[in-house]
Amino acid sequence: MMWTRVGLLWLTLSALFISGCGKESEPAAGAAAPQQTFEWQMVTTWPRNYPGLGMAPENFAKAVNAMSGGRLKVKVHGAGELVPAMGVFDAVARGAVQMGHGAAYYWKGKTPAAQFFTAVPFGMNAQEMNGWLHYGGGMELWREVYEPFNLVPFAGGSTGVQMAGWFKQEINSVADLKGLKMRIPGLAGEVFQRLGGVPVTLPGGELFTALQTGSIDATEWVGPYNDLTFGLYRAADYYYYPGWHEPGAMLEFIVNKDAWESLPPDLQAIVKYATRAVNQDMLDEYTARNNAALKELVEKHGVQLRKLPDDVVAALRQASREVIQETIAEDEMARKVYESFQAFKTDVAPYTAISEDAFLEIREQSAAPAGSASSDADASSSSDSSSSSGSGSSSGSP
Amino acid sequence: MMWTRVGLLWLTLSALFISGCGKESEPAAGAAAPQQTFEWQMVTTWPRNYPGLGMAPENFAKAVNAMSGGRLKVKVHGAGELVPAMGVFDAVARGAVQMGHGAAYYWKGKTPAAQFFTAVPFGMNAQEMNGWLHYGGGMELWREVYEPFNLVPFAGGSTGVQMAGWFKQEINSVADLKGLKMRIPGLAGEVFQRLGGVPVTLPGGELFTALQTGSIDATEWVGPYNDLTFGLYRAADYYYYPGWHEPGAMLEFIVNKDAWESLPPDLQAIVKYATRAVNQDMLDEYTARNNAALKELVEKHGVQLRKLPDDVVAALRQASREVIQETIAEDEMARKVYESFQAFKTDVAPYTAISEDAFLEIREQSAAPAGSASSDADASSSSDSSSSSGSGSSSGSP
Repeated sequence: MMWTRVGLLWLTLSALFISGCGKESEPAAGAAAPQQTFEWQMVTTWPRNYPGLGMAPENFAKAVNAMSGGRLKVKVHGAGELVPAMGVFDAVARGAVQMGHGAAYYWKGKTPAAQFFTAVPFGMNAQEMNGWLHYGGGMELWREVYEPFNLVPFAGGSTGVQMAGWFKQEINSVADLKGLKMRIPGLAGEVFQRLGGVPVTLPGGELFTALQTGSIDATEWVGPYNDLTFGLYRAADYYYYPGWHEPGAMLEFIVNKDAWESLPPDLQAIVKYATRAVNQDMLDEYTARNNAALKELVEKHGVQLRKLPDDVVAALRQASREVIQETIAEDEMARKVYESFQAFKTDVAPYTAISEDAFLEIREQSAAPAGSASSDADASSSSDSSSSSGSGSSSGSP
Repeated sequence: MMWTRVGLLWLTLSALFISGCGKESEPAAGAAAPQQTFEWQMVTTWPRNYPGLGMAPENFAKAVNAMSGGRLKVKVHGAGELVPAMGVFDAVARGAVQMGHGAAYYWKGKTPAAQFFTAVPFGMNAQEMNGWLHYGGGMELWREVYEPFNLVPFAGGSTGVQMAGWFKQEINSVADLKGLKMRIPGLAGEVFQRLGGVPVTLPGGELFTALQTGSIDATEWVGPYNDLTFGLYRAADYYYYPGWHEPGAMLEFIVNKDAWESLPPDLQAIVKYATRAVNQDMLDEYTARNNAALKELVEKHGVQLRKLPDDVVAALRQASREVIQETIAEDEMARKVYESFQAFKTDVAPYTAISEDAFLEIREQSAAPAGSASSDADASSSSDSSSSSGSGSSSGSP
C-alpha cells in the first residue's frame, strides 16, 4: 500500500521537478540582475518540524535561502506528505524530488554498507564519527556507496549517544529479550534478533500507536528530548536504558545527482557548507535539551531509569561482533566501509580515553561531595544527582 | 615595541580598509551583472596555515569565497604579518582590519568575562560548549560582552580536551609546581599562580624558543597534533600530561561591527554559516589526528606520558573554584557570563555522564581482552594500548 501511494504521487512529483528546477525568475532582493533560481523539494523521514531530527531540514532550508539571497529555495516535506518516510531514498534517487533527509541505515535493504554511516553498536561517538567522515576517508566512501543510486550524500546532524530504549519489563538477563518485538533498526536490530528478539523498522511517527496497540513491546527512538516529544512514556509504565547500539547516530542529507550537477558552483558550495553547519547544530540542540527532558521523564512521568546488566552488555557485544562479521562477509562494499570505520576507531579510541573520557572522570569526581560514592556512579545514581539538580555544583564547583 | 610596530602598520591598514571594503568590481563568474564586492583582511593569533588552529581562518576564507562566488574575499594574515598575535583584538576593534581569529581568553585584560568563552578549568567539553553557545544563551552573552568593543563574535572551532602540557620534571606533588615558569593563559594561568607557579601568556609561535632558551620551564599548548608540529619535544626531555584546564577550548572569529553592518544580508548569512561549518571542522581534524601524533611523540621521541596525581588534581580544582569566585566578584559581566555557563554545565553534566561517559566506559571494557586490567586504565596504560595499535580491536571487537 505504501508503494501504491508512492506511485500515485509520482506524476505530481515529476511535474514539480520539471517545473521547479532551474527556471529563470525575478531577482532576489539586493541582486543586481536576474539570475538563475532553483526551487527544490526535500522529503524527510520525520514529521515536519519535528524537534531535533526534523529541524535539520528546516534549518538547512533557512540557511540556503539566506545565503543564496533566495536563488535556491528548498521546500521541506514531512514524512507521508509527498512520500512515506521509508520512500525517501527512492524518491530522491529517481529524481522525483531533489533532496532528502533521513538516516542511511534505513536503506540497508538497498546496500548493507549504508548502515555504517549511521551507527555501529559499540562503535564511535558523534565527535569520532565526524572525524572519520571528514578527515578519515568516511565521506569519500559514503559517496562511493551512493554513487550507483545517483545520490550525493552529506552528513546531516548527529543525535549523540542514543538511549537503548523503552521496555515494559525490567531487563535482568538476556532471556528477558527473548520474543520481545522491538522497533530497532540497522545493525542493532540484527544484534537484537540474534539474542532472540524480533526487530522491527518503523518510522518515528508510528511508534506511539505501535506501542499503545501492542503491535510492538519495546522501542528505541533517540533520547530523552525526542522521546518525551513523542510521549512514549504515556503508552505504558516503562524502564528506560542508556545506550550501547547507536553511540553517535549520524543523519544524512541526500541530493539527486542530476539536481546537484545542475547547480552553479556557488550554490553547490552553499549546499555543502549549509549541511556542515546543520550537522553541528543538531548535536548542539540535543546536548542542550536532553537533560531537562530526562528529568521530566523521571520526576514527572515516573519513568524508571536503569542500567543494562553487565552480562546483557557482554552478550550484545558478542552478538554485535558476529553480526558485523557476517554483514561484511556477504557484501564487499560493506567490508570496505567497515574496515575504514574500524581502522579509524582503533586509532581514535585510545586518545578519546585519555582526553574526553579521562577529563569526564576527573570532572565527575569534582562534582561529588568529598567521600561520597557517586564517582563510581551507575546510571541510576547519575539520575539521582540529575534529579537533585546538581548538588555538587551548587556548592561552588567550577 | 609591539605597539610601535602596530603604530607603523596603522596607516597602511587604514588605507587597505578604505580601499578594500565595498568597492564595485567585475562580476564573479556566473553572476549576471556587477554586484558589490568586498575584500576583507583577517589577522590571526597563529602562524599562517598552522595545522588545526591556523586552518580555520584559511577554511573560512575558502568557504566564503566559494559561497559568495567571489563577492566576499578574505585575505588571511598570520601572527606578526600585519599585527602581532596579541594585537588582533585591537586591530579588529579599531577597524584597521575587518576580521580576526584567535581565542577570547587572550583578551582577559580587556574584559575578564571573555575567558569563559574559551575554556574554564573543570568546565565543559567541546560538545557541551557548543550546546551552551548555540542553544543555551552563550552566544547572546558573548555578543553582549564584545558589543562595547565594536566587535561581533562567532565560535571559531574547538580543539577538544587540551593536554595539561610539557614539564621537564615529573609532577609528583603540588610542591613541584612551585616557582615553575609556565606558559598557561586564561583562568588556568591564575590557578597555576595560586599554587605557586609563574604563569606567562605567549603566542604559540614563540613557545619553542622560549622553552629552548629556558625563559619558560614548562608550557601547555594544545594537544599531540599541534604540539608535535611545533616540535616542543625537541627542546628537552619531557613529561606530558592529559588535561584539566581547557576541556573544550573554543576559538573565536571576530568581525568589526561596521564592516559587518556594511554587508548585505546574504553575505552576512554566508559569514555566519561559514563560521559554523569551520567550528565543527576544526574539532573533526583534531579528533582524526591527535592519536597518531601522540604515538609518534611517545614511541619515536621518547616523551613520557603521565597522569597528574589525584592530590594535584584536587588542589587544582580547589584553586580553580577560588580563582573563579574572585574573578566574578570583581566584574559584574564576568559574573553574569559565569552564572549562565555554570547553570548550563550543572544541567548538562548528569546527562553527559549517562550518555557519552557511560558509553565510553562500556566501549573500553569491550576493547579490553577478557580478564585484563585495562578497563580501569590510567593514562599510561591507555598509552600502552595505543602503542600496541588496538590489540582488542584487531581481535574483531566492533
